[in-house]
Amino acid sequence: MRRNSKKVNTEIHDAGTAGKSSIDRRALLRGALFSAGFAAASAGMVRAQDNASVGAPEWMKTPGRPFSAYGTPSKWQEKVQRIFTIAPGRAGTGVSRTPLHLLEGTITPGGLHFERHHNGVPDIDPARHELFIHGMVKRPVAFSLDALMRYPMETRIHFVECSGNSGIFSMPQPQQVTAGELNGLLSCSEWTGVRLSTLLAEAGVSKEAKWVIAEGGDAAAMSRSIPLEKCMDDAMIALYQNGEAIRPEQGYPMRLLLPGFEGNMNVKWLRRLNVIDAPVDARDETSHYTELMPSGKARQFLFAMGAKSIIVKPSFGMSMKGAGIYEISGLAWSGAGRVSKVEVSADAGKTWKIAALTGPVLPKAVTRFRLPWHWDGRPVTLMSRATDESGGTQPTRPSWIAEYAPGQGYHFNGIQIWGIDADGTVKNVYA
Amino acid sequence: MRRNSKKVNTEIHDAGTAGKSSIDRRALLRGALFSAGFAAASAGMVRAQDNASVGAPEWMKTPGRPFSAYGTPSKWQEKVQRIFTIAPGRAGTGVSRTPLHLLEGTITPGGLHFERHHNGVPDIDPARHELFIHGMVKRPVAFSLDALMRYPMETRIHFVECSGNSGIFSMPQPQQVTAGELNGLLSCSEWTGVRLSTLLAEAGVSKEAKWVIAEGGDAAAMSRSIPLEKCMDDAMIALYQNGEAIRPEQGYPMRLLLPGFEGNMNVKWLRRLNVIDAPVDARDETSHYTELMPSGKARQFLFAMGAKSIIVKPSFGMSMKGAGIYEISGLAWSGAGRVSKVEVSADAGKTWKIAALTGPVLPKAVTRFRLPWHWDGRPVTLMSRATDESGGTQPTRPSWIAEYAPGQGYHFNGIQIWGIDADGTVKNVYA
Repeated sequence: MRRNSKKVNTEIHDAGTAGKSSIDRRALLRGALFSAGFAAASAGMVRAQDNASVGAPEWMKTPGRPFSAYGTPSKWQEKVQRIFTIAPGRAGTGVSRTPLHLLEGTITPGGLHFERHHNGVPDIDPARHELFIHGMVKRPVAFSLDALMRYPMETRIHFVECSGNSGIFSMPQPQQVTAGELNGLLSCSEWTGVRLSTLLAEAGVSKEAKWVIAEGGDAAAMSRSIPLEKCMDDAMIALYQNGEAIRPEQGYPMRLLLPGFEGNMNVKWLRRLNVIDAPVDARDETSHYTELMPSGKARQFLFAMGAKSIIVKPSFGMSMKGAGIYEISGLAWSGAGRVSKVEVSADAGKTWKIAALTGPVLPKAVTRFRLPWHWDGRPVTLMSRATDESGGTQPTRPSWIAEYAPGQGYHFNGIQIWGIDADGTVKNVYA
Repeated sequence: MRRNSKKVNTEIHDAGTAGKSSIDRRALLRGALFSAGFAAASAGMVRAQDNASVGAPEWMKTPGRPFSAYGTPSKWQEKVQRIFTIAPGRAGTGVSRTPLHLLEGTITPGGLHFERHHNGVPDIDPARHELFIHGMVKRPVAFSLDALMRYPMETRIHFVECSGNSGIFSMPQPQQVTAGELNGLLSCSEWTGVRLSTLLAEAGVSKEAKWVIAEGGDAAAMSRSIPLEKCMDDAMIALYQNGEAIRPEQGYPMRLLLPGFEGNMNVKWLRRLNVIDAPVDARDETSHYTELMPSGKARQFLFAMGAKSIIVKPSFGMSMKGAGIYEISGLAWSGAGRVSKVEVSADAGKTWKIAALTGPVLPKAVTRFRLPWHWDGRPVTLMSRATDESGGTQPTRPSWIAEYAPGQGYHFNGIQIWGIDADGTVKNVYA
């Protein structure tokens, strides 16, 4: 998990994707000097060396605030919020997005996990909620939360991505919005719960069964057909998210977690699993979440999210502070398994450099990639391309677009491009 | 990371640490039937099969609540709070603990990370905060937050544990309090920031330098002496915690992170790093955080936290629902690196069974262990013992106690024991 300094240096040397490519320690220092506060170093140090209390800020002069039962982010971070596409305060259907461009690492804090509700967030009394498993089973069974708590659990880090994430790239013109607005129907959490196959074994699945209809306990009774094979594989009834009880917006007290499958199938507030022999053509697998083809026919039941990556540093809304050294950083993930590599190009795709993958690279989880880069101050484009362990990778946007009817926006995993102007402005561009 | 079903079954067979040891699928079902809600299965299923809307709970009949900018846990979880040792609302020095017995997985949600403040939580304006590096360096430097944001970052999952965690076990009688009250000065987060060695290289450390004095920007100006060797190894200036800006209680806008070292040294609200050639005997390394020996002398500068484990399921405050199958689950960690194994005994340490380690086992991070166990309903004791990759393991409490002067409570990592009575009550016991 740790990278030693030697390795980082090698990567720095390897990272010159545009302009000057040799970066030594001295160059790194010069690069740092371009940043805002750094030039104030000497002045600040005189103050600090004379006496720690001289010029000490007011927050060192009076006791700070007391302990709290459940902490919240700093008031200085109040702009770090989920991004709404409908006005706050409106119930019903819609989404809110994770502000990916304001976050770091790979875990999404619970308060900023994206939301997708079809009729609002139900307030479920956990003592009255049960999970039913019925249909083509030997013994229909119901599990209270207390009952589920008795079963062996598993803990795994997985992303959840809405099938419609990044659908905005199907628009003919690139939209000038942040990486979070473009791609924020993606979040990654540590999930803990009971493996679904354990519960299906309790019910005793009939030999003829092939599908499971999952239904949510919300006011939309949101339903999807799930292949039994997935339910017997790595599917989980998730009860905990990042260590604590699953958040209401993510399905409290329990949700179906289908690692790597499109978000909509990971049914929240899970209430029923009806084991049957065919899919049911639920509303959300016919009117939504299908892929319209140029022929006018729609493809159904393409579940796994493709290999994908996005650069979030730099990205729209940030501006480059002049030529110098920058860390390119972004997120990569795939519904097929582990990310095997992420390549970055700063010359319109002519050449690609391998980025470093941070931390443990886990299957069907978000991986953070990083690459030091020297910007020479001239206009340039930046793009990233992920490849997963199954060999899946990202098409260009034009070749992705060519596959579908105009405006089809599900399962977009095309390569995304940031254009950087000479003045440091970062724009969403299509070429 | 995933365990397949076959492996789980093997572990179940292997897990008979007391009483009947052979557990098959049918036994698992019988076990589940002991749990609270399970017996209501048939009644519930009739209702569900007739019509999804018949008997549907009220939260399926009206739209739920709207989107939110920053989510919070369910109102039904309001008792899941940090545990105070002083009354809420009081500023000053003290601790609040993570309610480990109410959580699952390995990540601690930001709102429940333990707190240890020496003079309250400062409200630091990030635009006015600087990190100074001075002393025995070629170029004293100061870094604004913006400046630090330009540096290459790393993302790693690490625990932070207060040196005084579990000190309560130095008391002559076992205290009847929860696992969180006993051991909750321990939390685990995904941290992202800049490697300290990168910043020290900017300043140019003199050859004679051996220590770094870290000072916090709080109203205690909390200070500790850190060996330079650790600063050049895996130390990090952490800016993000679980994906978002570090929380105020954990050091917003930045903290020193010294993976595996006692929590107090991971100086929060970090303001100064003074590079020198000897430790400074700061208040918190003389009056606190030293280990008083039977001779009356105190040991100083023992930094790394030892291999340690605790069982949280079952634990004090829970009660067993009769004989049957239970999952034993707990946390293990070590300041020396990865946990290599966790053993569990249900017969006063005569025999030990190896528990399964969940998920990626990361260095200096919390690892969740699990072991299915059949309780035959008779009085029994449960204990766990972690071993780390360096060979470090946990002593018994009596042998740990014998090492120190009476009441010495720092760095406790003795084996902990839960006693289970025939009526299912779980108690903290010393033998």
